[in-house]
Amino acid sequence: MARTTSTPQVPLYKKFADELAASIHAGVLQPGERVTSVRAASQQHNVSVTTVVRAYELLESRGIIESHPQSGYFVRKTVASASASAAGKLLPPTHPATQQSHEVDVSRLVLATLKTIQQDGTIPLGSPYPNPALFPSQRIGQYASRITRNSDSFSVFNDLPPGHPDLLRQIARRYLETGLNVGPEDIIITVGATEAINLCLQAVAQPGDTIAVETPTFYAMLHAIERMGMRAVEIPTDPLTGMDIDALEALLQTQKIAACMVMPNFQNPLGSMMPDAHKQRLVDLAHQYDMPLIEDAVYSELFYGAAHPTSLKTYDRDGLVLHCSSFSKSLTSAYRVGWAIPGRYRSQVEKLKFLNTLATPTIPQRAIAEYLTQGGFERHLRRVRRGLLQQRDLMRHFVLRFFPEGTRVSEPAGGYILWIELPPRVDAMELYRRCLVLGITIAPGRIFAATNRYSHYIRLNYSYTWSKEIEKALKTIAKIVAELS
Amino acid sequence: MARTTSTPQVPLYKKFADELAASIHAGVLQPGERVTSVRAASQQHNVSVTTVVRAYELLESRGIIESHPQSGYFVRKTVASASASAAGKLLPPTHPATQQSHEVDVSRLVLATLKTIQQDGTIPLGSPYPNPALFPSQRIGQYASRITRNSDSFSVFNDLPPGHPDLLRQIARRYLETGLNVGPEDIIITVGATEAINLCLQAVAQPGDTIAVETPTFYAMLHAIERMGMRAVEIPTDPLTGMDIDALEALLQTQKIAACMVMPNFQNPLGSMMPDAHKQRLVDLAHQYDMPLIEDAVYSELFYGAAHPTSLKTYDRDGLVLHCSSFSKSLTSAYRVGWAIPGRYRSQVEKLKFLNTLATPTIPQRAIAEYLTQGGFERHLRRVRRGLLQQRDLMRHFVLRFFPEGTRVSEPAGGYILWIELPPRVDAMELYRRCLVLGITIAPGRIFAATNRYSHYIRLNYSYTWSKEIEKALKTIAKIVAELS
Repeated sequence: MARTTSTPQVPLYKKFADELAASIHAGVLQPGERVTSVRAASQQHNVSVTTVVRAYELLESRGIIESHPQSGYFVRKTVASASASAAGKLLPPTHPATQQSHEVDVSRLVLATLKTIQQDGTIPLGSPYPNPALFPSQRIGQYASRITRNSDSFSVFNDLPPGHPDLLRQIARRYLETGLNVGPEDIIITVGATEAINLCLQAVAQPGDTIAVETPTFYAMLHAIERMGMRAVEIPTDPLTGMDIDALEALLQTQKIAACMVMPNFQNPLGSMMPDAHKQRLVDLAHQYDMPLIEDAVYSELFYGAAHPTSLKTYDRDGLVLHCSSFSKSLTSAYRVGWAIPGRYRSQVEKLKFLNTLATPTIPQRAIAEYLTQGGFERHLRRVRRGLLQQRDLMRHFVLRFFPEGTRVSEPAGGYILWIELPPRVDAMELYRRCLVLGITIAPGRIFAATNRYSHYIRLNYSYTWSKEIEKALKTIAKIVAELS
Repeated sequence: MARTTSTPQVPLYKKFADELAASIHAGVLQPGERVTSVRAASQQHNVSVTTVVRAYELLESRGIIESHPQSGYFVRKTVASASASAAGKLLPPTHPATQQSHEVDVSRLVLATLKTIQQDGTIPLGSPYPNPALFPSQRIGQYASRITRNSDSFSVFNDLPPGHPDLLRQIARRYLETGLNVGPEDIIITVGATEAINLCLQAVAQPGDTIAVETPTFYAMLHAIERMGMRAVEIPTDPLTGMDIDALEALLQTQKIAACMVMPNFQNPLGSMMPDAHKQRLVDLAHQYDMPLIEDAVYSELFYGAAHPTSLKTYDRDGLVLHCSSFSKSLTSAYRVGWAIPGRYRSQVEKLKFLNTLATPTIPQRAIAEYLTQGGFERHLRRVRRGLLQQRDLMRHFVLRFFPEGTRVSEPAGGYILWIELPPRVDAMELYRRCLVLGITIAPGRIFAATNRYSHYIRLNYSYTWSKEIEKALKTIAKIVAELS
């Protein structure tokens, strides 16, 4: 697929970083091996020292290499990749797109699946939620309680769309800290990112329209499409670099796409992170075809690298990006506070929010605003990220060690979920049912696509504190997988 | 309009009560006058003593008569009706229906109006919310705080649709106390009644369908219709007895109505309460024409009479009533906890709830469940009802005394809003704008219909504790009304 002339140049350091990443993933450089020194790389590739430094920093932010003080950069030595067969067990890109759109009806299966996780005592490896024990619930609860006691009599009005002014300010401040210039007036508070995604989709597309999604994709996106009577067209997606922009461009040349829904950072379930150059190019394509981009950024705060990943919104000059996020993955799931930054569709989304649920509950908004005002969010996140990275490696290690030959596992650079390809003959729905009887939940691949193309895939949650129970559960799953394969 | 044979007999005591109510409203019996004794009425009308007693109890429950110990029943002597012209100032039924349906677009005006109420220091007579000072916020806040501190790690799953089991049980228990047989399994928790109404409408009707509504009607219903691209047809509505069932039946004979949205108790903005016989007949009509009824019952707990009013759901044998309610008017607005009891559409509404906002926030649900478990709701409500009834009379009195000739005021038997007809030349939007400049909000009639038929009506909120400021604000409104008329 030739690139069009309107697509800007990818900066040299990103190109260089992508090439190096590819060679690491191809096994040219092994985990633990030293990466060519900055000076030597600069000479070998005939690029400036600055370019090499920026490329290495980028790879570090993606969790691919790590710097050792006084000794330079090394390929990250994860527990899992210490196993000899690790490189071969990385996931391949997903199927090519059929360019056919599909009617969608997965919500009943998803609801049924999630409800099983609800049962007390189950091992929640199928959960989409992070372990609540990671959250500073007590502190937020204290703020909630204090706010409730001192609430003045008109407070309920403060929460009409766009939302509570203190929270709007704090969210804008947080974006500025992470390098995105957003004002409080750009934001609409919603009941979780789910509502944000729904409202954004309704603001930009009509029933019968075709919406481009990643494959596999987060089922909330399929739900939104299903509910509005729209059609989904799946775009091939790479487990490392996300949506295949070439494939999307080819599609745009042949049919009208009303909107594209995408999760650029730590995609659910793949865990992929789009390189900055891909994000930039996707936004440019959106501009070229006047196609709104609905960006789900709920995992962005849970990166393992050194720097906060960029958003599609970072590159958005035309207001075509409708950025959706929430605190449910980073601070508290129980409060269900999310938001949209809908760009040029702000007024429509605000109106739809008002029509849909009138207002987002006051106390959760104000308690979170108070938490952000008092400080400690960044410290909390650093602790969570460290813990998640460790548990990612532990779970990958376990899966690769105990699951049968033919199993391949993602290696996300953020978030808390693994996407696992099982041997082709394993029926993940049957695996799901057998595990459930034993008090273990997993998320079957079936719920991540409009069609049943992920029948031998599962998604596992590694946010729960590592324990003998989790180890035992993983061995049990491995045993059933072996029986089924 | 002849009644069809399938419509059941109205019980004798209800017929008798309706006749007596009509004669009171026509001024035959004046406020403070003694009602014919039970024995005498039984002889005069040739009905049993039991029938008269039940009729009088019904009228007492509607706030029309009151019993004085040892002396029998008297027409309720309200402050307002002590004024000589009070009887003549009651509202007439609303316009006859045109039987034309309308596209709806009032949401922008409503949102703009509500936002003005948001400003600090305004006198919130235009507010749709009850005075938060009426609520036991501190106690609920303490529960919220305690629950937050003690939350176990899997709690977030408990709030997937249909909702938190404790809250479902408590709501079902409350319905049983008020005489309605509802099980926890019949209920879906939502983000306020607004979400419930939206989901119920989407479950039963399609874009392009025609929906019957009262006129004037609560704008959230118009919003739901607007958002789904449906059409509204307005049914004449009596300020005392609610929707005109004859007019609805006539309409049903000529066109397909996909659903009927109605607020049988203390309708917003009219304050009307449908007599039980009307409720029964409406449910029978729904059965006959296979037409779902979406019932908004948010004000039902705020009755002034002796007994809890019935719901449409009380008469629903076929599951055609989708009953929607919330705690926002009776216990706490800030928590935004509502619910639907969707009858035969339960599974569709549960699925739509899941798609729309995934889950309702945990802590508000659990805090309210704890409040209901611990007891005191009924005592709280009794106190609120007494206070509201007093303030209704105070505000009616003030309006009738200070507003110019030609003003007519509703006399709701529950809730906390007055619907006021101003002299025909008064432009309520202009009044609204002039009041706003002076820090006073009112709700202009424009927002209660798809067409501008209530251009000289306003709605006032009397839930705020009576004060010199409120008196002054009412006198200011009266002065501007006089200038505009």
